[in-house]
Amino acid sequence: MPRTKERLALDSARRMLHHGAYSRVVNLLGPLHDAEVANFLAHVPLDDRRRVVRALQPAKLQRVLAVMPSDALAETLADLDDKTLTRLLSGMPRAQAAGVLRSFPDSTRETVLQAMDEASSGAFGELLAYRQGLVGAIMRPDPFALDEELKVSEATDTLRRIQGEVPLYAYVVDERRHLVGVLSFRQLLIASPERRLREIMTPDPISIRPEEPQEEAAALISRYDFVALPVVDEEHRLLGVVAVDDIVDMLQERATDELYKLAGLGTGDRVFAPVLRSVRMRFPWLAVNLATAFLAAAVVALFRTTIEKAAILAAFMTIVAGQGGNAATQTLTVVIRSLAVGELTLSEGLRAVAKESVTNLLLGLGIGVLTGMMAIPYHPSVVFCLVLMTAMIVNMLVAGLSGAAIPLLLRALRIDPALASGVIVTTFTDCCGFGTFLGLATMLLRYLG
Amino acid sequence: MPRTKERLALDSARRMLHHGAYSRVVNLLGPLHDAEVANFLAHVPLDDRRRVVRALQPAKLQRVLAVMPSDALAETLADLDDKTLTRLLSGMPRAQAAGVLRSFPDSTRETVLQAMDEASSGAFGELLAYRQGLVGAIMRPDPFALDEELKVSEATDTLRRIQGEVPLYAYVVDERRHLVGVLSFRQLLIASPERRLREIMTPDPISIRPEEPQEEAAALISRYDFVALPVVDEEHRLLGVVAVDDIVDMLQERATDELYKLAGLGTGDRVFAPVLRSVRMRFPWLAVNLATAFLAAAVVALFRTTIEKAAILAAFMTIVAGQGGNAATQTLTVVIRSLAVGELTLSEGLRAVAKESVTNLLLGLGIGVLTGMMAIPYHPSVVFCLVLMTAMIVNMLVAGLSGAAIPLLLRALRIDPALASGVIVTTFTDCCGFGTFLGLATMLLRYLG
Repeated sequence: MPRTKERLALDSARRMLHHGAYSRVVNLLGPLHDAEVANFLAHVPLDDRRRVVRALQPAKLQRVLAVMPSDALAETLADLDDKTLTRLLSGMPRAQAAGVLRSFPDSTRETVLQAMDEASSGAFGELLAYRQGLVGAIMRPDPFALDEELKVSEATDTLRRIQGEVPLYAYVVDERRHLVGVLSFRQLLIASPERRLREIMTPDPISIRPEEPQEEAAALISRYDFVALPVVDEEHRLLGVVAVDDIVDMLQERATDELYKLAGLGTGDRVFAPVLRSVRMRFPWLAVNLATAFLAAAVVALFRTTIEKAAILAAFMTIVAGQGGNAATQTLTVVIRSLAVGELTLSEGLRAVAKESVTNLLLGLGIGVLTGMMAIPYHPSVVFCLVLMTAMIVNMLVAGLSGAAIPLLLRALRIDPALASGVIVTTFTDCCGFGTFLGLATMLLRYLG
Repeated sequence: MPRTKERLALDSARRMLHHGAYSRVVNLLGPLHDAEVANFLAHVPLDDRRRVVRALQPAKLQRVLAVMPSDALAETLADLDDKTLTRLLSGMPRAQAAGVLRSFPDSTRETVLQAMDEASSGAFGELLAYRQGLVGAIMRPDPFALDEELKVSEATDTLRRIQGEVPLYAYVVDERRHLVGVLSFRQLLIASPERRLREIMTPDPISIRPEEPQEEAAALISRYDFVALPVVDEEHRLLGVVAVDDIVDMLQERATDELYKLAGLGTGDRVFAPVLRSVRMRFPWLAVNLATAFLAAAVVALFRTTIEKAAILAAFMTIVAGQGGNAATQTLTVVIRSLAVGELTLSEGLRAVAKESVTNLLLGLGIGVLTGMMAIPYHPSVVFCLVLMTAMIVNMLVAGLSGAAIPLLLRALRIDPALASGVIVTTFTDCCGFGTFLGLATMLLRYLG
């Protein structure tokens, strides 16, 4: 079984790395599939990776880099000199090289583009013009296209001659390179050699514009079970193609991204990232949270004299605030995920807020009663339990309202809801939870004893 | 542009739905692509969906159901009578029908299987034997296979005759159906008709076993940029194929799933799910959290007399516990995501725990000093600020330790870490945060005044 053999080789390579035996690592990696080597390198510490990269044969290196995930690639190349960089990028598939260039600082990018020949740097310039997240930024330019007037036999001859990357479909264009049809290789294979392409092609294929978001491409590819999607300009001329494997990579990265933003993490933060990088990336978010925590603490401080008189309130106030935070996180996650996969649009926002408010009000009734009952052994006053219950219900309702409204509001203001909603919403439920509970308790203090 | 026209039709259909004009909806949906109709139906309220489904032409319905996302499909079919169900499932691609059957209660599944002819029910039985999450559960059985001794011209003839689903690759097998090679249709197309398949095939293709996890199939497909992956048994006989579009669907569902579990949500909980279903799915998790919140409250209650003497402690204890919770969530998310994408294995667990502990200790030093300084206006005693700082540092270290160790421990015990880690880790950081801060304050109470 080839995969078992590969695994053994990779395990040995990992051990050799620990011992700093870089030339043995290179020998072990030599016979492995390029994709396997790229994946291995992407997951070893950066220093080790750079040493192995320097020791690899240039041709092997170029092939390995071409299939390395883009963030690991950018990291690997970051400290190379401009000349080596230019040479490596020129030998890489263009869409991927553009992705790497996009991640570099402006000055490096300029230097590398200037060192290239004019044709390449022009083509890169066009790709780099598309913002990250747009279809244009992941499309592969110059897809395989055939003229609609060709015969099947002529198409087969053309196909026999092409070098390099294997196309997934043959796109059919008219004399002005307008996209008019698509052909799978199976269709070409079973058609009689004398027929013209326009007679056997599937006409009017689904296509996408380069300015559309990548999610739209993912949705179309997933809905129609395509393996590639043609990209056309405003006049329906064929510009490029988005391949399903780029969509798979994009979805994996996007899922990590969304999860990370909700937890206040930067995308480059990995379990074995250098400690100082993790610290640098996490600190700002914790500092922002600290500032908002002081807000909530200020609310508690307002009720200092009440707490002095009934210190048990301090124990229960955290329960009210905490449950509000949990309920808000549930609502937030549902709303943010629905926005991300396109199930929820801003126009349906009010309906979403209403639904989440009712849901959380009902949850609040249930959790409120439960809390009131669970508190009896700690404080057998009916008024205390009623205060606790009421505060819980109010805070859960606030959790539903703010958990749905705040991400929608941020989206309307074009701020990424996954990034900022969490902090705002939990500050809201904390302040409201402490305020309602301690406020009610203060008003009814004489009945609490 | 065909997509614009489709969008307009769908918008009208949505309006007609609101007015209950189901037959007009069916007329509008008729000319649209099946995948587009399936996607539309998957996102309208369940009642409306069922009405439209009943009104659709049987043939159109069957095609639409075959491309509907599996959870929406199961929901749609849930209230049909067994006879209709059996008929619909028999006409669907087998791997997908098996997925639907898997989601049904045992009794319904048995009834449907018994109503089928023997061959179908046997084939379904085999597919159903694979647990959800394993390759066998999403593989498409009976892939397109060609004998290695065939000539290219004979293979082309065979290909011309096949009906139904279009294969992505031709797999090449020997006389005992062992997988020996793979051919793209492009390879067949450009080869001379007289050659034998074994001469032109790519030998020893990467394959996977049905008992392996689906993530492994996703990783291979994504690493090698395949559009399909053959599934073989222990003797290397070809059993089925996993297609990239099933992987895309799986990744989308998995991303939602992971995000949802971290927030304590069930996968069926959508923004426009019926209120009562959302309530029913969210309540248990909130109730579990409530129970653990009482644990943390009990720790606070231990220090009741301290709080009576210095009520300001109540305001600051929530800051210590809250920051610990935030830091723990960061660590947890990194560790859980790394486990999910296969970047972290249990054998590297100790290294991960060490890295996260050091990271959080450093973060604790930074945040601790910051907190101590920010507290000065509220309580200008040096001892108070030192107590706050120390408790913060200790709790952040605990956050790193427990945030990394608990998901690893759960994984080792074969419990899904995404599901249970959050509750356990935040209970840990809450109790420790309250305990350290109030404990230290109690010991040093006479210096706090």
